[in-house]
Formats: sequence, structure tokens, C-alpha cells
Amino acid sequence: MADQLVKKTENLAEWYNQVVLKAKLADYSPVRGMMVFRPNGYALWEHIQRVVDRGIKARGVRNAYFPILIPASFLQKEKEHVEGFSPQVAVVTRAGGENLVEPLVVRPTSETVMYDAFAKWIQSYRDLPLLLNQWGSVVRWELRTYLFMRTSEFLWQEGHTAHATAKEADDFARDILTMYEKELIVPDLAMPLMAGKKSEAEKFPGADITYTMEGLMPDGRALQFGTSHNLGQNFAKPFAVKFLDKSGKEEYVWQTSWAVSSRLIGALVLVHGDDQGLVLPPRIAPTQVIVVPIQTKNRTVVSAARKIADELVRKGVRVDVDARDEFSAGWKFNEYELLGVPLRLEVGEQEVKKRQVTAARRDSGEKSTVPLSQLTAKLPTILDNLQSSLYRKAKKFMDDNTHEAKTFHEFQKIMKDQRGLIRAFWCGEAKEEAEIKEKTKATARVLPFGEEKKDGPCVVCGRRAVGRWIWGQSY
Amino acid sequence: MADQLVKKTENLAEWYNQVVLKAKLADYSPVRGMMVFRPNGYALWEHIQRVVDRGIKARGVRNAYFPILIPASFLQKEKEHVEGFSPQVAVVTRAGGENLVEPLVVRPTSETVMYDAFAKWIQSYRDLPLLLNQWGSVVRWELRTYLFMRTSEFLWQEGHTAHATAKEADDFARDILTMYEKELIVPDLAMPLMAGKKSEAEKFPGADITYTMEGLMPDGRALQFGTSHNLGQNFAKPFAVKFLDKSGKEEYVWQTSWAVSSRLIGALVLVHGDDQGLVLPPRIAPTQVIVVPIQTKNRTVVSAARKIADELVRKGVRVDVDARDEFSAGWKFNEYELLGVPLRLEVGEQEVKKRQVTAARRDSGEKSTVPLSQLTAKLPTILDNLQSSLYRKAKKFMDDNTHEAKTFHEFQKIMKDQRGLIRAFWCGEAKEEAEIKEKTKATARVLPFGEEKKDGPCVVCGRRAVGRWIWGQSY
Repeated sequence: MADQLVKKTENLAEWYNQVVLKAKLADYSPVRGMMVFRPNGYALWEHIQRVVDRGIKARGVRNAYFPILIPASFLQKEKEHVEGFSPQVAVVTRAGGENLVEPLVVRPTSETVMYDAFAKWIQSYRDLPLLLNQWGSVVRWELRTYLFMRTSEFLWQEGHTAHATAKEADDFARDILTMYEKELIVPDLAMPLMAGKKSEAEKFPGADITYTMEGLMPDGRALQFGTSHNLGQNFAKPFAVKFLDKSGKEEYVWQTSWAVSSRLIGALVLVHGDDQGLVLPPRIAPTQVIVVPIQTKNRTVVSAARKIADELVRKGVRVDVDARDEFSAGWKFNEYELLGVPLRLEVGEQEVKKRQVTAARRDSGEKSTVPLSQLTAKLPTILDNLQSSLYRKAKKFMDDNTHEAKTFHEFQKIMKDQRGLIRAFWCGEAKEEAEIKEKTKATARVLPFGEEKKDGPCVVCGRRAVGRWIWGQSY
Repeated sequence: MADQLVKKTENLAEWYNQVVLKAKLADYSPVRGMMVFRPNGYALWEHIQRVVDRGIKARGVRNAYFPILIPASFLQKEKEHVEGFSPQVAVVTRAGGENLVEPLVVRPTSETVMYDAFAKWIQSYRDLPLLLNQWGSVVRWELRTYLFMRTSEFLWQEGHTAHATAKEADDFARDILTMYEKELIVPDLAMPLMAGKKSEAEKFPGADITYTMEGLMPDGRALQFGTSHNLGQNFAKPFAVKFLDKSGKEEYVWQTSWAVSSRLIGALVLVHGDDQGLVLPPRIAPTQVIVVPIQTKNRTVVSAARKIADELVRKGVRVDVDARDEFSAGWKFNEYELLGVPLRLEVGEQEVKKRQVTAARRDSGEKSTVPLSQLTAKLPTILDNLQSSLYRKAKKFMDDNTHEAKTFHEFQKIMKDQRGLIRAFWCGEAKEEAEIKEKTKATARVLPFGEEKKDGPCVVCGRRAVGRWIWGQSY
């Protein structure tokens, strides 16, 4: 129950684990580092799936499915890729009762096995662009794990495309990032973010450019919400993904890959939750409204509650009634606060008499009385207001905790005293990036779109910068 | 192209492989025995997912996700289960650069890892029924593989439930089987089937009763479309899945598990396809209608074709226009026949002049002329007729190839001369079942619902039978 929860401000990590477990979003599993997605958590993933699936299909992407096991030698074909993933793979050495001649890895990501197929399927410019996506899970061995945020297996989608020109590939990679931001994360998850480019040190192993979305968590650490990679021809060459262009000349394709994962669910919990538990934005909440009849033995009250729910269902609201006898109204209030249901409607004898309901907002706790005659008309607005106030609150937190550092002294002081994000000019060199990381634990999170044009002196060395970067300690 | 296809009646296995590859439903992968689901094939799976997901959610089932890797010791906990799956598992022995103390198997099915969690989650009768489902893939090592039908990894859903009483569990297992039959396989896939109970030898390792749906393939062999298991308390006991009943007594739960897989796509190809390629029933076809403008350089013709498509889209028909210049109309006709698109609409100069279209049915090849003014009104009926005639044709094939055998001599003769399915009384003993299998290769496929009450002498030993069973050679 909520009253046993540790306070969010006191111990964020412990609060987070308690909320995830008590709200039945997830559970630990018997396999170290792997978790179970319980129905309450998986329902959030299903919402993410629906939105992303619609967004990518509107852009001509089609879903496919490639093997879960990949020959170990495939990972070797792209140099940075193998260095990035080899330490983390799970290896199948026996199958069907026999030792395998070549070990297979459980996919940590599918570039290699997909592009092997792309090479067979793509012959001419007519076969381009090839736009595929896969829904599934990947395995990357982790020693220190954290439910949803860092586990040895996670759910995701991975999109993989091949294009005839470098520009088309880059445009596509950026368009997908924008889709994640504008169709999913900002409107539905109500989470603000900074979108832009990653540094060389932080980009995906095998990418020319990694585009990223970075959010800020309550402890002042940055979290990567998702990435979209311009792979250039880095995989096309080792996998021989070639096409005949219109003039009959053989060229390598230009590629992208992009993903969001179940980590977004962890971010959602961290960003919006409070001391009473989960707070779900209405657009992603599996149950948007819970109707609680106060006197469950009073048939008039219970039937009034059910009638309200029926009317809301007809209006397309996701609503439940909890008329169980064995729990008190107070117990239920706590329970649905823990579960993060955005709005509670209380229906008691008083309400029935006065033909009204009492509405309690999960985010602010604010209670109001709504005449029954206006309920279905007003409810969408109440939910919209709740949705946008969650976003505003999170945006204000991010703005308040994004500082400007003109000198390295300022930079170090901010990271020491308050964490959060820092805007600072940077020359783009690995040496200066390493020095910042060593002295402050902060890494280059993102060069926000537009900020690459900003001119100023590097916060470490004073040389001319390649834009004003966002820095932070990361998850 | 279709003219290179081997004839379906000449070499079914080769025809099947050619159709699957040429229609781009699937491809081979670099991992032996594993396949790639290409977008045309995966789209069929997405339809199956939508229908089953709707069906199970209407029954209160919620989706969840459990780890892909399972401790090897878990499989040992149910005796029949370990015997059934151990020979087929893929084993992870190294992960994160180290040898694992206990090997992990890539899930061949998830009973064990799920029920370990059920034991934690279920305490009282209030937690029952627990109704979960998981979408994903499983790995079972196969030596002889066949695209979609038998591969070392396949896509499926696996439902797992726990109930307070034996009857409730059995009812649920049967209800799910009925859902598969009446909501998916018969209406959408247009495939007839026989539903009932499996024999002891053929049931799922660990089940008390396996309910099954069996179809008949064109080569006279039987194919299992899906199963639903009444697990009794066989897993509840080793995994200690217990609950306090209303009287405060501790009891083991009663369980079910059930699944359909991507094998259904293979069945769909085999049952409906013909010498020109795939034939898709309209209800599952990703593209139901292809509009082909005959003169692609004639703007009036092309714009008439697009206008027709736009109108059909507004009516909810899944329609595409192929106005590509670089391919002839004849080439396109062949192409969309190979791809199995149910209906082709031809729009040429003649059609534009007479304000009509020529409609060609994929199944029968039948052509008809439809006035433009009637097209949107008539099209749903045309597609419905096509859908039901595919079912009727498949049903007639099954009926024509289901024979009655009164004596074992008759039984052997039918299996030798014509294959197909045989109805025959059986005493239910393993000895007689083994004799039938040894002498005819046929196994007990299913005891259809209702047929358990039929009375007669066993076709082998003459003793009183436990119902009239369906026999056949299986895939």
C-alpha cells in the first residue's frame, strides 16, 4: 500500500523499485538481470507499440521478423559494432543435444542478420527504399540492473532502412526521431526532451551519426529516450548491400536504424510519479477513470456508478468501476492512487441525491464537483488539462535544472552542487570530453538541433566550439 | 514469376517452397533451421495477432512478457515436460564474457518460468482466475525444417491461466479452442477443421487433456492448427501454485495453456494456393483489391483507376493501385496472382468509355463487368462470396477425403491408396494405437467433440471403443 512507500525525494531508487513492484508493472525473474513485464506494465508497452506502429506505417515502413539467434561471426563484420556488443552477448553453444560448430549469439540488435538479407533482396534502385521494422526483445548482459531501465533483456522495436542516397537516409533517420518526439513522447507520455546529435564517443557502434532524445530524471541525471542512427555505408560495405542505380552503376546503399524500448516505461514512472505512487498521463493510462461507489451495499449508489461508467465508455473513455464489497472506499482510493489512474470519480449517497459526482485528480489531488448532466461533456477537457499540466510540470523541472556554464569552474560547481543538465560550448575533441567526464562524471548528452550553429569558446580549452552541447550524468 | 512455378499437384513440397519464396512471405536465414518472416508473410501474422488479441481480451485475458531465457533446472520440474522438450532446446552456456554456473535454455515454451511467478502472485481465491497471454517466439531445435511449418524458431502466442476449480479450467481451455475456430480459422482463414481431444500419446507433455484443431492438407496429411491444454494440477504441484479458498483451506490451482503459431500461415498457403501461386482469403489479405490501369501512359485511365481506389478506401476496402510504367499489364496480372490478391480490377480505355471496370477473381479466374455506379455497393458482396467459396471448396476437399474404416484391412487400404483422414473406432489402448502407426504411419489425430459418445468395436482389436477417432498421417 501507498503508506508503506518510501518518499520519492528521500530515496529515489528505492521509491522507484517499490512503485514498479507494488503497482504490479514488473517483477524480478529467476534469471539474473531479466525481468517479468506484468500486465499493468505490458499495457503501457502496448500503447507505445500502437503509436509507433501507426507512425512508422504512415511512413511506408513494414514489419518483419528475423531470427533470435545470430552466427557469432556476423557480429565481427563491422569493427565498431563487434567491439560495442561482444562483451554483452549471451552465447548458445549447444542445441538439439549437440555442440554447435559455430556458436550463436542471442541477438543484442539485428543489424547484421538483417543486412545479410538486405544484400539478397536489394538488386536495383527499384528495390529502394527498403523500410523494415521488427518488434521483439534483445539480450545484452548487464551486471547492475534496474527494472525497465537496465535489464539483460528488454522489449523494443528496431527499424532498419536502406536508401539510394546519403541525404534520403539522413532525412529518414531525422524524420523518425521527430515521429518519436511529436507523436509519442511529448503528447502521450507527457515527457519533455532535448533532441539532437550525439558525440563521437557516445554514438552507436557502427553509426556515422546518432540522433538522440534526452530527458531529465528527478535525481538530475539524463536519460536517453531513444535513438535514430544514420549508418552511412558502414554496414553496406561489409555486408555487400549494393544496388544498380538508374544509370546502371553499382552503388552501396545508405542505411538507418532506430529504436525505442521498454525503458520509456521506467522514465514515465520516474518523471511523473509521486509519494502516493504512479501517476499516469491520461493518454497512455490503460484505465483513465476509476469510478468508486462509496457505499457498495447501497444498490442505488452502485447502479448510479455503473451508469456513469457506461456513459463514459460510450464516449470512448477507458473507465472501470470498483464495486467490490471486501475493500473500503478509502482502501480503494489509496490503491488507485498507487496504480496512477488519472481521475477518480466518487459516487456516494450525497452525490446521488444531488445528481453530481466528486472528481479527484491524481496529479494534484484537487477535488471538484461535477453535475451529472455535464459529466460526459466535461470529462475530455478534465483529462486534457491533466495531461498538459503533467507535461508543463515536467518541462518546468527540466528548464529549472538546465544551467549554463561559461567556465569549467562553473561547470564543475554545478555538477557537484545540483547535477541536472548543463549547456556548454565544446570544441568537439575527445580529450576535452574525457576531461569533463573524469572531473564531473558528466558526458556529452546531445547537441540539440539548432545549437550546432551557436558560436563560443570551448568550456575546457577555450578554442572555438562546434556548437553548444548539453551535458549531464547519465543512467 | 508464376510461369516458372512447379504445379501444385505434381510436387506439393517444391510448389510450396517456391510460392513462399516468390510471394516474399519468407526467406531462409543464415542460421540453420531458422527463417526470416518477410513483410508479406508478417502482415498475415499481424492479422492473426489482431483477431486472437481481440478474442482473448474479450475473455478477460491480459498480455504479459516473461524472460526469453529459462534456468535449465526449471524444465526438470515436471517429468513429462522435460522429456518432451529437453532434446530440442538451445542452451546458453556463456554470457557477458563468462561461463554461466547454471546453463539457461532459450524458451521452448514458458510454462515453467510463468508458473514460478504464478506461485508468487497467487495467494487467495481473490487472485483467481489469473488469465495471461504472451506474444513472442520460441526455439525448438529441428533437423528437418519446412518454412512456416517446422522451423527451429517460430512466432506464436501462449496463453496461461490459473483457476480455482477443475471445471472452470476445463471450460476455459475449451472456450479458447472455440474462439480460435469460430473467430479466426474458419471465418478469416477459410479453413475447415475438426476440433476435439487428443490421445494420451499425442497430448502435450504435462497436460491432462489436450484439445486440438486438425486440418487436412492437399497431400492428404493432417495438420494441427492449434491446441488448448487442460493442465490439471500437473504444474501447480511442482511449482507450488496454491491459494486459500473461501473457507481458508489451501488448494492447488487448476491450469490451462493454449497456443496458435505462425504455422497457420503455412497451412493457409497449402490449403488455398494454386498453380498460379498464393490465394488469400479476402478477410486476411493485406491487399484485398489491386487496381491495374491498362494504359499507364493514358492520364485519364490512370486517374480513373486512382479514383476507384480512393472510393474503395473510403468504404474500408484494403486496395492498392499499380500504375508503374516499367511493367506491362500482363506482367502485373501474373504478379498479383502470385501474391494471392483476391480481386483484380482492370481499368482500360474501354472501361473508362463505358463507365465500368473488369473484375477478375483470383480463386476462380472468373471475369465480370461491373458498372462504376455499382462498384462500391457490390464489392463487399463480391469479396464475401469469394471468402465463402474458398471455405466451401476446402470443406468439400476435407469431406471427400475423410473415409470411414470398419476393419483394419479397410484402414490399411485407405491409408495406402489415398491417404486423407479416416474415421475409425478405437479402444483407446496404446498397443492398438502403436500397431496402427507402425502399419499405416497414421496416428490418432483427434476425437472430435460428440464422437466420444459413439459406440462401436475397435478397428484393431474389436473390443468396445472409447469413441470414433480421426486418424491420419501428420506433418
